[in-house]
Amino acid sequence: MRILVMNPNTTASMTASIRATATAAAAPGTEILATEPLWGPESIEGHFEGYLSAAAVLDRLATLGTPFDALVMAGFGEPGREGAQELLDVPVLDITESAAQMAMMLGHAYGVVTTLDRAVPQIQDRLLTAGLLQRCAAVRGTGLGVLELEEDPRRTVEVIIETAREVVRAGAEVICLGCGGMAGLDAEVAAALGVPVVDGVAAAVKFAESVVGLGLTTSTVRSFAPPRPKAISAWPLSRHLSPVRDTGRLLATEFSAQTSDI
Amino acid sequence: MRILVMNPNTTASMTASIRATATAAAAPGTEILATEPLWGPESIEGHFEGYLSAAAVLDRLATLGTPFDALVMAGFGEPGREGAQELLDVPVLDITESAAQMAMMLGHAYGVVTTLDRAVPQIQDRLLTAGLLQRCAAVRGTGLGVLELEEDPRRTVEVIIETAREVVRAGAEVICLGCGGMAGLDAEVAAALGVPVVDGVAAAVKFAESVVGLGLTTSTVRSFAPPRPKAISAWPLSRHLSPVRDTGRLLATEFSAQTSDI
Amino acid sequence: MRILVMNPNTTASMTASIRATATAAAAPGTEILATEPLWGPESIEGHFEGYLSAAAVLDRLATLGTPFDALVMAGFGEPGREGAQELLDVPVLDITESAAQMAMMLGHAYGVVTTLDRAVPQIQDRLLTAGLLQRCAAVRGTGLGVLELEEDPRRTVEVIIETAREVVRAGAEVICLGCGGMAGLDAEVAAALGVPVVDGVAAAVKFAESVVGLGLTTSTVRSFAPPRPKAISAWPLSRHLSPVRDTGRLLATEFSAQTSDI
Amino acid sequence: MRILVMNPNTTASMTASIRATATAAAAPGTEILATEPLWGPESIEGHFEGYLSAAAVLDRLATLGTPFDALVMAGFGEPGREGAQELLDVPVLDITESAAQMAMMLGHAYGVVTTLDRAVPQIQDRLLTAGLLQRCAAVRGTGLGVLELEEDPRRTVEVIIETAREVVRAGAEVICLGCGGMAGLDAEVAAALGVPVVDGVAAAVKFAESVVGLGLTTSTVRSFAPPRPKAISAWPLSRHLSPVRDTGRLLATEFSAQTSDI
Amino acid sequence: MRILVMNPNTTASMTASIRATATAAAAPGTEILATEPLWGPESIEGHFEGYLSAAAVLDRLATLGTPFDALVMAGFGEPGREGAQELLDVPVLDITESAAQMAMMLGHAYGVVTTLDRAVPQIQDRLLTAGLLQRCAAVRGTGLGVLELEEDPRRTVEVIIETAREVVRAGAEVICLGCGGMAGLDAEVAAALGVPVVDGVAAAVKFAESVVGLGLTTSTVRSFAPPRPKAISAWPLSRHLSPVRDTGRLLATEFSAQTSDI
Amino acid sequence: MRILVMNPNTTASMTASIRATATAAAAPGTEILATEPLWGPESIEGHFEGYLSAAAVLDRLATLGTPFDALVMAGFGEPGREGAQELLDVPVLDITESAAQMAMMLGHAYGVVTTLDRAVPQIQDRLLTAGLLQRCAAVRGTGLGVLELEEDPRRTVEVIIETAREVVRAGAEVICLGCGGMAGLDAEVAAALGVPVVDGVAAAVKFAESVVGLGLTTSTVRSFAPPRPKAISAWPLSRHLSPVRDTGRLLATEFSAQTSDI
Repeated sequence: MRILVMNPNTTASMTASIRATATAAAAPGTEILATEPLWGPESIEGHFEGYLSAAAVLDRLATLGTPFDALVMAGFGEPGREGAQELLDVPVLDITESAAQMAMMLGHAYGVVTTLDRAVPQIQDRLLTAGLLQRCAAVRGTGLGVLELEEDPRRTVEVIIETAREVVRAGAEVICLGCGGMAGLDAEVAAALGVPVVDGVAAAVKFAESVVGLGLTTSTVRSFAPPRPKAISAWPLSRHLSPVRDTGRLLATEFSAQTSDI
Repeated sequence: MRILVMNPNTTASMTASIRATATAAAAPGTEILATEPLWGPESIEGHFEGYLSAAAVLDRLATLGTPFDALVMAGFGEPGREGAQELLDVPVLDITESAAQMAMMLGHAYGVVTTLDRAVPQIQDRLLTAGLLQRCAAVRGTGLGVLELEEDPRRTVEVIIETAREVVRAGAEVICLGCGGMAGLDAEVAAALGVPVVDGVAAAVKFAESVVGLGLTTSTVRSFAPPRPKAISAWPLSRHLSPVRDTGRLLATEFSAQTSDI
Repeated sequence: MRILVMNPNTTASMTASIRATATAAAAPGTEILATEPLWGPESIEGHFEGYLSAAAVLDRLATLGTPFDALVMAGFGEPGREGAQELLDVPVLDITESAAQMAMMLGHAYGVVTTLDRAVPQIQDRLLTAGLLQRCAAVRGTGLGVLELEEDPRRTVEVIIETAREVVRAGAEVICLGCGGMAGLDAEVAAALGVPVVDGVAAAVKFAESVVGLGLTTSTVRSFAPPRPKAISAWPLSRHLSPVRDTGRLLATEFSAQTSDI
Repeated sequence: MRILVMNPNTTASMTASIRATATAAAAPGTEILATEPLWGPESIEGHFEGYLSAAAVLDRLATLGTPFDALVMAGFGEPGREGAQELLDVPVLDITESAAQMAMMLGHAYGVVTTLDRAVPQIQDRLLTAGLLQRCAAVRGTGLGVLELEEDPRRTVEVIIETAREVVRAGAEVICLGCGGMAGLDAEVAAALGVPVVDGVAAAVKFAESVVGLGLTTSTVRSFAPPRPKAISAWPLSRHLSPVRDTGRLLATEFSAQTSDI
Repeated sequence: MRILVMNPNTTASMTASIRATATAAAAPGTEILATEPLWGPESIEGHFEGYLSAAAVLDRLATLGTPFDALVMAGFGEPGREGAQELLDVPVLDITESAAQMAMMLGHAYGVVTTLDRAVPQIQDRLLTAGLLQRCAAVRGTGLGVLELEEDPRRTVEVIIETAREVVRAGAEVICLGCGGMAGLDAEVAAALGVPVVDGVAAAVKFAESVVGLGLTTSTVRSFAPPRPKAISAWPLSRHLSPVRDTGRLLATEFSAQTSDI
Repeated sequence: MRILVMNPNTTASMTASIRATATAAAAPGTEILATEPLWGPESIEGHFEGYLSAAAVLDRLATLGTPFDALVMAGFGEPGREGAQELLDVPVLDITESAAQMAMMLGHAYGVVTTLDRAVPQIQDRLLTAGLLQRCAAVRGTGLGVLELEEDPRRTVEVIIETAREVVRAGAEVICLGCGGMAGLDAEVAAALGVPVVDGVAAAVKFAESVVGLGLTTSTVRSFAPPRPKAISAWPLSRHLSPVRDTGRLLATEFSAQTSDI
């Protein structure tokens, strides 16, 4: 089985780190592909960037040549999943929902530690829409931006642990790491706090394996029916973006290169 | 005061009809500008198209030369509003929320009549996230696609009335017309059913006037803080889309032309 | 267009201050009338007084000779609106709901700063019934009684700012001033906190203009159908209250005087 | 123990019927007093009449000479209870909440059969505010007005049974009779449907006995603290209503007469 | 009328204390029987023990020779009630729900003081399922285990008062004592805090009297229909437990002894 | 990895069928053990039987000699999971929650088809407590008892399809088979309706593999902390049940036999 993991931003080092987490989580026999959009923001820290990224991710999916069996969307609290569900006939998992769902398997209430405080309402809204907010005890930001997470790894872990402790005090029995860029930090945080820590990328990979393993995929009878035939000008975008056609410079990470070592 | 009304799709005839409704609703002294994205789907009937449209709308806003005092987003149940709120320092109204809010001023419970059944859960989710679902008695589709609304106007009105009657039977005391393309049909539906009928475009224009009139605008302290400075490749998209640079052919409706008659 | 603003208590100085706020908010061409009940409590700080006031307001409405196009009820968190909606065929706006609705147009979550702590659950219940509580981050009292607000204006503003700061800390991105007696303080609070501050009287006036401007009024098909014909002894009350008939002493503010300067 | 049962309208025959039901429910040693307001509507079928009645009930309570140990308010879905809770230092039970609470002791979900359809949202709102709506499967009207209930008793029972059957089909396991004027019909409805039927007057009397029996009364620390001292003009109303002072003609039912046979 | 009060654990001293509270609450003419299961945990502080106790209580009920008119289940936050409702044709009251219901008769919001923190989510879930959580301001643990409550009565009362004070600060206007083992402490806590304190055992006894007094019992049309005939091996358990048949040693409290002084 | 699947009733043929479904769902390298309680009801169709079964399952777990890596509880809508979570240090999955969670990965709303109508509120309550009810469009019974499912397999499938069709009409985009005894019917129902059908046993097995695969287990910091040391008389029950000690006749399915073919 081949799972495509989509980093929603254009920062290739984040793609690499997300791919490493996904690969570590994957069962034997599962191949992990990882990529990012061909254009768009280098990190996503708000609605504006989230909406751009959603379109860039859909564009990437529409133009990708390689087949895959499931998609994992690795943006925490970000929009776009429903669009991919309409576009693809393979299952689409999202790290926000997957983290919350796995956390609910492990404890009565869960909490989320994320990056900036401004993302908190956005994450709560995604969980609300997903029908998963009821058992969420708290969502709290560390104050670190997405790209700052990698700057001082020691400090990052400390701040996450400190924030997670508050979340546990607020009633969470399980912690979800609320940013794709926190991939790989779960063990350290769990050891410090004595509670299970769920990495959304890992959870989503396992759930993708689960759904594919049972031969199931997205329902097409209503919300996620395929798009109706219609005129969409300039679509797919990357085919109309001049630098792409000219030089390919926008391809931050060459897809084939990314997956060659799997 | 100048209000920009954004048709989320690229169909210029819909822009014209939405502008007419907005202009009819506007107070003396309010200037209505109307436009649509430079690229994207001709109609929006699902999440995939909605996410494309959201990016196209943000792109249009980022490259528009003309100043305005408030934005009205004329897509019913569609994403993107929060992105525009971050991007702009003027208030942003949305016809989904505005219709629901005005309906709640007029009756105890309201209902929505929309186009296709597949849009129903999407609209309910928008209302849920907006905190406005509690007093929504029902959302129901007519089975007519967005562009089909204009095909047989007589039949369109009949089907809307029939559907609205079911919604009233389900407890709605006020009806919201759940598609920008239904603009202008409110009076006829109201006459047939004996209940107030709210057109979201008209409601949003009045609320934009209200908010601007009081000197208020979007809060920037948390959810809708301006985007942080960062690299966004290929942004704004329309500046990188080759047909735009070459011929301008993508400009479905010339903005200055649109507003010349105001 | 003529909007009647009803101060729910009998304190004429509050009527004057509410009228000033309403007048400042009104569009050119909108005439503001303001009045208060002919009898009842001098301020409303609980359910008992709220219920008396509701009847006194309805009595005032039933006996008022002057026509108007919309009613704004200027009691925050107080009962009575639904009764006025049944009685009148013009739209009825309420400052509690209007403040919350306008706040939801400006931010993701809002909060309310009110007078006494005892009013907090009452306000929350009104917002709950109105279907507007979901995005309310907090309602908090300043500890100042309604009539104490005017005693030391400097101290009043300081306490409101201090309380509003807590409400922002609790997640509110917009502040609603939760008492008709706080009319006119919005600018100062907004300046101190850097968040939009909504005055319910101003919001309700704009919404009244909006609804009237679109030719809409309260739905009569269910909840707010006109009262059925029946015997109501001693109604309207003010016609049976002896001091009214004898000396008119109960008329705290002469209606014609109030409106003479408009 | 002496329980005062307050019919919210001025129809003495309804007071008599409510008193009979209350008396039948009362334990040995419980004395039932029953009365109605001195002025106001003959029946309550909407918000306007409900608000008048709330003030009339508070007026009646404020001027009543006789002491009692608990108050039962016999209007279904009607406002006013919180005002009485502030005014009195004895417990105040309400038939809406009492019926729902007793029903929840007897089944998983309950339903309400009431008079006119227009009362349905009003009843749902009372149950919502009371925190008791979650297990309410349905509220449905019979189409019979309050005073029509007594016109053709046979037809009344039939219509109630028919409506209750729909409510059971909607998931209710217990039926609440949603009007004080339905007092005494519970046994017949229960026999026809095979489900428990709760009469709110009877339930409230038992709960009043329960609370008084344990020496408990309303909490005064927040929501229901006694009214603050202040000027209330024309209060109590009945002392200022001229017919009252002149002839007593407004006294629909003489209180002492009512209770003499107990 | 005869009410059976079931202590869910096997600690006879707790049965005695619960019986004393029940007896003090009972009306003249109400006979209180009290007992505990024949086997199972000595105290219940979690789900595992709760589920064992539920079966042990059902076993006790299935084998009890004595008739009774209502059952009061005296475990706070514990499972089992619905099983007893199916098994018995008399009403079944539970101290969790009864405490919450009586508290809601006395104030706008209530809170619960319980034993260990680990019980908090369990209690919240019971209240949620019962449809009574909405007006619960807080549930908080004292940190004292069930059997520790009796160790140092002075300290126990102090800790309960301290915890209750926090619960009041969180918005509760009434306190529920959240453990059968706190029976009898209500007066002291109420005196210290100035808010009504509800003992669930007392409340449930009064509600049992209420329901029985009106001739009502559990609905059998859906959720609580009697068990269908089927093979249940080893049932009733106590008839198959060897010590019971041999020596009766498991009978922690002889039932006839318990009730002899009534 | 070894997953223990627990049929909650004592019917060995159901254990066999559940084991077959679990085995079919399991990944290579996953060993499935299946068993049932040593005593208790032959099927579970209500709360009484559910509570007995919960204790019997806990008893089975406490006395089982074989180690395993995760537990799957195969009763739909039945109690007991939280007790097992306290007792075991391996993850515990439940088919009710697992079915709902997998369904939410595949569509916007899901529905449940179960056996008897009386189980509907019980299932809804489990989903409510699990925080998974929000996106449940409907739960509906087929009218077939648990053991009747096997009587006429053709008729069973037809009735399930017919009921599922109603559930889809009520808004479900995915169907959950709401009884362990429906294991293996998913493909046929999916083919007939064109929507994904989730078998809870299969889903729970995949989720057990997922959680174990990531090295995660139940949080012990609050709700599911291990039981405190205390006296529990007659525990474990099966060690005290005389037939067990005498003849072993109660062992409906010998555990070692059951697993020998794996």
